[in-house]
Amino acid sequence: MTIRNTAIISGKASIGSNVSIGDFTIIFDNVVIGDNVSIQSHCLIGQPTSLSDGMPLVIGNDSLIRSHSIFYEGSSFGSQLMTGHRVTVREKIEAGENLIIGTHCDLQGNSVIGDYVRLYTGAQINHKSNIDDFVRIYQYSVLTNDPHPPSNLEVGVKIHKYAVIAAMCCILPGVIIGEKALVGAYSLVKSDVEPETVVAGVPAKYICKTSEIKLKDGSNQPAYPWMRHFHRGYPEEITEEWMSMYGA
Amino acid sequence: MTIRNTAIISGKASIGSNVSIGDFTIIFDNVVIGDNVSIQSHCLIGQPTSLSDGMPLVIGNDSLIRSHSIFYEGSSFGSQLMTGHRVTVREKIEAGENLIIGTHCDLQGNSVIGDYVRLYTGAQINHKSNIDDFVRIYQYSVLTNDPHPPSNLEVGVKIHKYAVIAAMCCILPGVIIGEKALVGAYSLVKSDVEPETVVAGVPAKYICKTSEIKLKDGSNQPAYPWMRHFHRGYPEEITEEWMSMYGA
Amino acid sequence: MTIRNTAIISGKASIGSNVSIGDFTIIFDNVVIGDNVSIQSHCLIGQPTSLSDGMPLVIGNDSLIRSHSIFYEGSSFGSQLMTGHRVTVREKIEAGENLIIGTHCDLQGNSVIGDYVRLYTGAQINHKSNIDDFVRIYQYSVLTNDPHPPSNLEVGVKIHKYAVIAAMCCILPGVIIGEKALVGAYSLVKSDVEPETVVAGVPAKYICKTSEIKLKDGSNQPAYPWMRHFHRGYPEEITEEWMSMYGA
Repeated sequence: MTIRNTAIISGKASIGSNVSIGDFTIIFDNVVIGDNVSIQSHCLIGQPTSLSDGMPLVIGNDSLIRSHSIFYEGSSFGSQLMTGHRVTVREKIEAGENLIIGTHCDLQGNSVIGDYVRLYTGAQINHKSNIDDFVRIYQYSVLTNDPHPPSNLEVGVKIHKYAVIAAMCCILPGVIIGEKALVGAYSLVKSDVEPETVVAGVPAKYICKTSEIKLKDGSNQPAYPWMRHFHRGYPEEITEEWMSMYGA
Repeated sequence: MTIRNTAIISGKASIGSNVSIGDFTIIFDNVVIGDNVSIQSHCLIGQPTSLSDGMPLVIGNDSLIRSHSIFYEGSSFGSQLMTGHRVTVREKIEAGENLIIGTHCDLQGNSVIGDYVRLYTGAQINHKSNIDDFVRIYQYSVLTNDPHPPSNLEVGVKIHKYAVIAAMCCILPGVIIGEKALVGAYSLVKSDVEPETVVAGVPAKYICKTSEIKLKDGSNQPAYPWMRHFHRGYPEEITEEWMSMYGA
Repeated sequence: MTIRNTAIISGKASIGSNVSIGDFTIIFDNVVIGDNVSIQSHCLIGQPTSLSDGMPLVIGNDSLIRSHSIFYEGSSFGSQLMTGHRVTVREKIEAGENLIIGTHCDLQGNSVIGDYVRLYTGAQINHKSNIDDFVRIYQYSVLTNDPHPPSNLEVGVKIHKYAVIAAMCCILPGVIIGEKALVGAYSLVKSDVEPETVVAGVPAKYICKTSEIKLKDGSNQPAYPWMRHFHRGYPEEITEEWMSMYGA
């Protein structure tokens, strides 16, 4: 346990055992940090906001928050959260375990995020997004919510389990992305995407079934569902189940 | 008035009454900060640059600068500036009052910005941009200025009053966006946009008049001009005028 | 030489002469910093990672690292590196001299970068990218590397000398961009680009030879190769050679 002496830590914060806190990081009052959590330098943890309704920021056990990141009070994260640098996370996010939030991601709050979700550099997630387990969203993709900006409506995007949104996509308000679907890079998604299908383009159109895409590793095996071949960062009990369901 | 004792504040800076300055923030010499201004932690305010021609950074009264933001000397902001986190603002910007600059916005300087403008996460504004009152620019949209990169020419974008640029748009150099126009999400705008029209696509094409878009709140009322129904964050004297002009 | 007393500097770091280090910056152990280097405030220099194989971070002479930037150990930069604010640079990048990395750029590591490369705001460079001398990549453009995400394959992008990638482009895995080519703004590049050609669109298609684009400065001269008219930031011995090869 290393708490750097330039860190500024509220005596009201609840901090677990074996927590390390980096230099120039500020821990505010309304914070519950689990055990074995590492918070790097220059962070703000539990930034106050009147929009939190008094709820604390909860960070689960075994988490890593990289430097220059900002978490507001009023959101909750399961165990094994891992962030890149300079993420911004607002209030009223309910997230499961083993979430990865890449560098420069911006989560505006009021969203639900499942287990084992991965967000890459600069993904931008607006209010009322609903992201199910094992979803992956790549660089600079945006989940919008305003059907005719600016408005008072917030119509969130729903992304079902195992779906993949590749780089630089924009998902329009209210769109539902089906389970195990793939949105190709650089797509504007205006309408719902069927499960296990590939869409791409501006606007995105049906390309093929995901099963028709072959691995480019020379094996000529199907690349999807991706759980049959890609296991990095998932625990063995999950990947063994995947292998029994989808394995080659 | 709370000035944190880890903040580093030049004795030459001019700082108004009732100003709060967060931890690990640096205030440089050539700065004029108004009254009732709140500057959060980890900021740089008035970063020196030879490109400022010696002009100070001016921050108007009643402003809020969120953490990790950087303002160079040589730009000027009216009252009620509000920023997200980690904004970057270079020299020679002349901005009106009640400007909102979202998280990660990058303003390269040498631009004119009117009153009540809103820039969302990651909007990127290059030299010689001219943004009129009440304009709204959404996530990751870019105002370019180089007609054949790299060049020594800087041909800025002009956006007229009340126009809306939705998420992830790219506006090419010299384009003029007309008053009350709407650029749909994920558009590349290569030519001028007529007032009160909707354009979208890559490249953007005329879609319809803004008056043809209906509110998706069940009312079947026209969604534009947006001032008839959207008033959040604007003072009553403005919204009352809007209601008398555009109200249902 | 100014080293601010709030900076935290490892005694194991190798630091050249005439180096300045800003407030609240942390210099880790495994770092070799050349002479006449300026590192601004709130940076992390030499962040440890097990992926560095023990290699140090090397910063060449006469470099400028702007505030809030993060460099991991295990990458190497020639002289005259210059960054914007809040850049993120991971391990195992081998970069030449006079590299400019714009604000918010994210370099994921394991890449090769030549001399005099320029990366603008938010450019995002993934593993196995290979960027040759004098290449320029503009705002929010992404070099991807995963042919069917998520996978264990990393198929990098190769960009040859003098090529220009304009704003908001996405380059798909394995694409080769030819020497002196131009990728127009807002393009999705799925296939290789021939030298001295212009491509644009979603997906990008052949538009014309670069020599067919005229300068918009009234001269009606060809705008490319850009080295014939654009010299800002390059040393005289280079621009003189360019003038003898390409000059009007």
